Amino acid sequence: MSDHDDDGYEMPDREEFQHDPLGHAEVRGGMTVGELVEQYGHAGIGAADVHEAADIYAEMLADDDCTVFMSLAGAMVPTGMRKVVSDLIRDGHVDALVTTGANLTHDAIEAVGGKHHHGSQNHGEKTEREHDETLRDEEVDRIYNVYLPQEHFALFESHLRSEVFPALEEEGTVSIADLCRELGRANSEVNEREGIEEDAGVAAAAYEADVPIYCPAVQDSVLGLQAWMYSQTSSFSLDALADMTPLTDLAYDADTAGCLLVGGGVPKNFTLQTMLVTPGAYDYGVQITMDPAATGGLSGATLDEARSWGKLEKDARNTTVLGDATIMLPLLVAAARERIE
Amino acid sequence: MSDHDDDGYEMPDREEFQHDPLGHAEVRGGMTVGELVEQYGHAGIGAADVHEAADIYAEMLADDDCTVFMSLAGAMVPTGMRKVVSDLIRDGHVDALVTTGANLTHDAIEAVGGKHHHGSQNHGEKTEREHDETLRDEEVDRIYNVYLPQEHFALFESHLRSEVFPALEEEGTVSIADLCRELGRANSEVNEREGIEEDAGVAAAAYEADVPIYCPAVQDSVLGLQAWMYSQTSSFSLDALADMTPLTDLAYDADTAGCLLVGGGVPKNFTLQTMLVTPGAYDYGVQITMDPAATGGLSGATLDEARSWGKLEKDARNTTVLGDATIMLPLLVAAARERIE
Amino acid sequence: MSDHDDDGYEMPDREEFQHDPLGHAEVRGGMTVGELVEQYGHAGIGAADVHEAADIYAEMLADDDCTVFMSLAGAMVPTGMRKVVSDLIRDGHVDALVTTGANLTHDAIEAVGGKHHHGSQNHGEKTEREHDETLRDEEVDRIYNVYLPQEHFALFESHLRSEVFPALEEEGTVSIADLCRELGRANSEVNEREGIEEDAGVAAAAYEADVPIYCPAVQDSVLGLQAWMYSQTSSFSLDALADMTPLTDLAYDADTAGCLLVGGGVPKNFTLQTMLVTPGAYDYGVQITMDPAATGGLSGATLDEARSWGKLEKDARNTTVLGDATIMLPLLVAAARERIE
Amino acid sequence: MSDHDDDGYEMPDREEFQHDPLGHAEVRGGMTVGELVEQYGHAGIGAADVHEAADIYAEMLADDDCTVFMSLAGAMVPTGMRKVVSDLIRDGHVDALVTTGANLTHDAIEAVGGKHHHGSQNHGEKTEREHDETLRDEEVDRIYNVYLPQEHFALFESHLRSEVFPALEEEGTVSIADLCRELGRANSEVNEREGIEEDAGVAAAAYEADVPIYCPAVQDSVLGLQAWMYSQTSSFSLDALADMTPLTDLAYDADTAGCLLVGGGVPKNFTLQTMLVTPGAYDYGVQITMDPAATGGLSGATLDEARSWGKLEKDARNTTVLGDATIMLPLLVAAARERIE
Repeated sequence: MSDHDDDGYEMPDREEFQHDPLGHAEVRGGMTVGELVEQYGHAGIGAADVHEAADIYAEMLADDDCTVFMSLAGAMVPTGMRKVVSDLIRDGHVDALVTTGANLTHDAIEAVGGKHHHGSQNHGEKTEREHDETLRDEEVDRIYNVYLPQEHFALFESHLRSEVFPALEEEGTVSIADLCRELGRANSEVNEREGIEEDAGVAAAAYEADVPIYCPAVQDSVLGLQAWMYSQTSSFSLDALADMTPLTDLAYDADTAGCLLVGGGVPKNFTLQTMLVTPGAYDYGVQITMDPAATGGLSGATLDEARSWGKLEKDARNTTVLGDATIMLPLLVAAARERIE
Repeated sequence: MSDHDDDGYEMPDREEFQHDPLGHAEVRGGMTVGELVEQYGHAGIGAADVHEAADIYAEMLADDDCTVFMSLAGAMVPTGMRKVVSDLIRDGHVDALVTTGANLTHDAIEAVGGKHHHGSQNHGEKTEREHDETLRDEEVDRIYNVYLPQEHFALFESHLRSEVFPALEEEGTVSIADLCRELGRANSEVNEREGIEEDAGVAAAAYEADVPIYCPAVQDSVLGLQAWMYSQTSSFSLDALADMTPLTDLAYDADTAGCLLVGGGVPKNFTLQTMLVTPGAYDYGVQITMDPAATGGLSGATLDEARSWGKLEKDARNTTVLGDATIMLPLLVAAARERIE
Repeated sequence: MSDHDDDGYEMPDREEFQHDPLGHAEVRGGMTVGELVEQYGHAGIGAADVHEAADIYAEMLADDDCTVFMSLAGAMVPTGMRKVVSDLIRDGHVDALVTTGANLTHDAIEAVGGKHHHGSQNHGEKTEREHDETLRDEEVDRIYNVYLPQEHFALFESHLRSEVFPALEEEGTVSIADLCRELGRANSEVNEREGIEEDAGVAAAAYEADVPIYCPAVQDSVLGLQAWMYSQTSSFSLDALADMTPLTDLAYDADTAGCLLVGGGVPKNFTLQTMLVTPGAYDYGVQITMDPAATGGLSGATLDEARSWGKLEKDARNTTVLGDATIMLPLLVAAARERIE
Repeated sequence: MSDHDDDGYEMPDREEFQHDPLGHAEVRGGMTVGELVEQYGHAGIGAADVHEAADIYAEMLADDDCTVFMSLAGAMVPTGMRKVVSDLIRDGHVDALVTTGANLTHDAIEAVGGKHHHGSQNHGEKTEREHDETLRDEEVDRIYNVYLPQEHFALFESHLRSEVFPALEEEGTVSIADLCRELGRANSEVNEREGIEEDAGVAAAAYEADVPIYCPAVQDSVLGLQAWMYSQTSSFSLDALADMTPLTDLAYDADTAGCLLVGGGVPKNFTLQTMLVTPGAYDYGVQITMDPAATGGLSGATLDEARSWGKLEKDARNTTVLGDATIMLPLLVAAARERIE
């Protein structure tokens, strides 16, 4: 059926394609992030995905019955996303966090007074290789264009060995979530005790808000290396399987469930796979990734694919934003907050 | 030299790396786009690039002596970026536009009353191949998830043959910029005459503001196909080389020059290469691209590489934002406008 | 219907998915490229695409009635793909080549005795920016990790002004294909006259084999800049539209038509769009690209999308190989040659 | 100093850039993979990286004193790379394998008679979403374009509960490597007992060749879910830290060490990080990845970056191949085998 829209545009008469005409995004100085994201909704390609993602994420956060699982891969804490995440936790927008040992390591370093530094990747006096050789000599570790002096790892080691591991040692074998909670407690206490201006961070916020942190591959990090070294001379050990019970229980008990997946890797899959052993599945799914689906890897896999496994409900709202998470996560969070606050 | 910053943080003592500690981005509901981009400046990776790009672009726009060249590749008009560009032109923020025949084609279709449509890429009843077979039967052309009924091309053809080509035919062989200007004039007139609500678009804005449009590969588009068919039965023809004189003159006469490169392809290179035959070079360069440099293609090439060719001044400020232009262009423009307005 | 395959494997009983079990690629030292590509056929993801692409390409080449269009984008000649292409032309495997001014420029430089050099991108003593500043001082142009001393451009200019442009000048306005043919003739003659060991290259092979070269955006290159400068002081000029007639005729006259698209950009689209003004369409399509479809750009667009426009036949065999063309083009050509020779 | 090369080419006189001229790759039907890779060495961009990677990998394998660590991420087994890896293990080319629970799960499914299937991603009758809904109803799990009937997971569960877990239960808490070894033993035995034609796979080959498999995030997989469920009703458990001792010892004892990193994720980092607690570091490093470094993620991080952390020796030979591992791994292995055999 052909008809006219408000502008007098005669709608083409077709069976096959959706009839909504595309609009044109319009921007102005001083607009809010939420207004920008509304404008994205008039456009196509990635802009339309950002609009859809913000809409789903806002609905997920506004739904009081929705249990929100958040996964956080990679280098998000050392690249400046720490406070975005800790604020979400403090404001009750995260019910369980699944992350990497790297994020926990860098989060604790900042909590106890260390800092990451803007690097000189494009502004130094060496090639990448020579520059890295010099960094090695100067004991500075590089994460793309973020730099970390190695003495901060010594600070971190000292923190773990004095504040974190001893308390756990008495319990013998503990779960990884226990380690994360104890780390959060210690980060919070030291941060306050030492009067460090900086926010005590992700693990501290989770401890304070009683939000569990799951970190399946904790041994794949400096935190894990330290735990292993401590375990060599003590009765301390980590149970690789213990966390699956409370995580599954959380999924089981959820009236509705949503996930915000920041990056891929183990955090993404561990968040999704818990639905394989739960009758329900995610009702909402938003992911931010740089990886195209065509590689066949899980990191870039669509959430439709997850539907075939029963990880998402058949009628779940879901979308993927293809882009750099350091840009996209703050954008989505600001837009969703503007909507629900 | 080791010292303390304001927070009491003891700065590590190193030769090799920059001493600025990285901060943490902080977002809140209701913040402006400019405030968000300020927060990106505390973070690393892509977020830091967006901050730098907005800073350079704002400086370029605020510099009254700066001649601003803008390149616009690919599918930017059909995917909703048309008004962002036409507003930049109308507000005096573009001195020359280099674009594709595709953008001019889709811009004119909207100007004379056609519309693009949100497609059903993920919501139809067929696979991609079967869906495209059906679209073929139904005479709908697909650009990823944007759909265009083919009758809009008939409307466009009629517009060209009645309003655009006849006026040019008298002149015989004309430059491509002449064709673009005539197209802009015709778009503007028909749009007003027919009372079409929509903005008359990029070419119309350029015509009205007397900003030249260069389109080196115009024959690689439906506009070009139509021009060729018209040329078969008339004395009308296009000179492939004529535009290089005024473009080079504009570069030659610029006190300072800046470029905003949206996507790669011919528009990017043509904008850059004009400096090969000009004593000066770009003083500012910002590009938005999805292509990593490692492919070796010009589309993803860094602006540092352009420096080796003399396309950028040795001390030019420049940066690359890696991401989808439908997201990044509105974001950069909103942030830069907020800064300068 | 459930049954057993040769291994005694009981085939699962399903409606929805294809029943072929996936095998396992097996490699051994000394295997031929064709044998490797056969093994890819047992695997999934990209390997399966390479196998399919080689199969289609071999069928296209073996089909005596098939007119083969080849597009060649970007930096393929300066990065070492020149002889792969010229050998295909000499062996009758290309009926029309659509390429860039850049490829023609670098092809001619080699033909008359210039060379490209492996660069020091990762092995120099500077950062990228400083390195490019030094290259600028030393008059060396960089294409990612390929380096070109600027005196080779002077050699090229001299070649054009003595051997190529004067012959064309007498004809006044010529087509771009005329320029390409004249360039090929001159490359071939100078190469032989000077006794340069190197193959005379792509344009020379095309001249010798009477294969047309189309280069829609020729002005977007050093070749185009030189043509423009020559046109300033002579009656020489280029007609932007003239080539569309013989290209369309070739497509019109083809019994069956196939395209091998190496990279995206103008060469890809110009090769495809000729079918918009031809009753038929491509019967075979193989493309190599680094660009994911999700960007919405034409360079990464699937060939299924091209089907909606009528650029491919509804029943055309087609596939996309996602990868670096400097790796994938030699691989596909070697495998297809092994099959058909 | 300017001079002439063999062809009479006058070498340009410059300080800054390397003087080797680039050649032109040449391919012919029937050439071996090793010959193709030699030709890549004449080219630039990705082709040159493949040549360098094959050269380093061959040197690593030919060095009798070199301990070779191999990491294997993602979906390599379900996408057909299983026999490439098991043959490397059987031929003594792997001293330790670091992989994912997913690869072990899919490897075991094939070992006990299940199969993966070529899917209908591009050939079915539904959109991606609808197709996945149908797959859900039909109990078929999708990994991009590879399909797995869910009854194969039941087969796998039965295998684990009858052949694998009971033997481990007696030991109480075991290391993850113990689980992998027991799985390999059981795969090998069942495969032979049942007369399954197929190779018994990666874990079986590792068991037979006494090569350890490390799988830090084993709980992030169906294998891990099964282990957890079994642990609920038994004394069986997994120690998350125990494997770090033998892995570190292996690195400690190596005269020279090399790593072949296939994909990123936990396997890549776990392989690299063991050098953080070892005096030495890798002497050779080759990685295959689809991820550009600019994302800041570890998966795409260069091996130069790893040098800053002390994971690679300062003078280590290393390179990165950017591409699909299902294409690149067989190519590299075939070329390296041709060289050393």
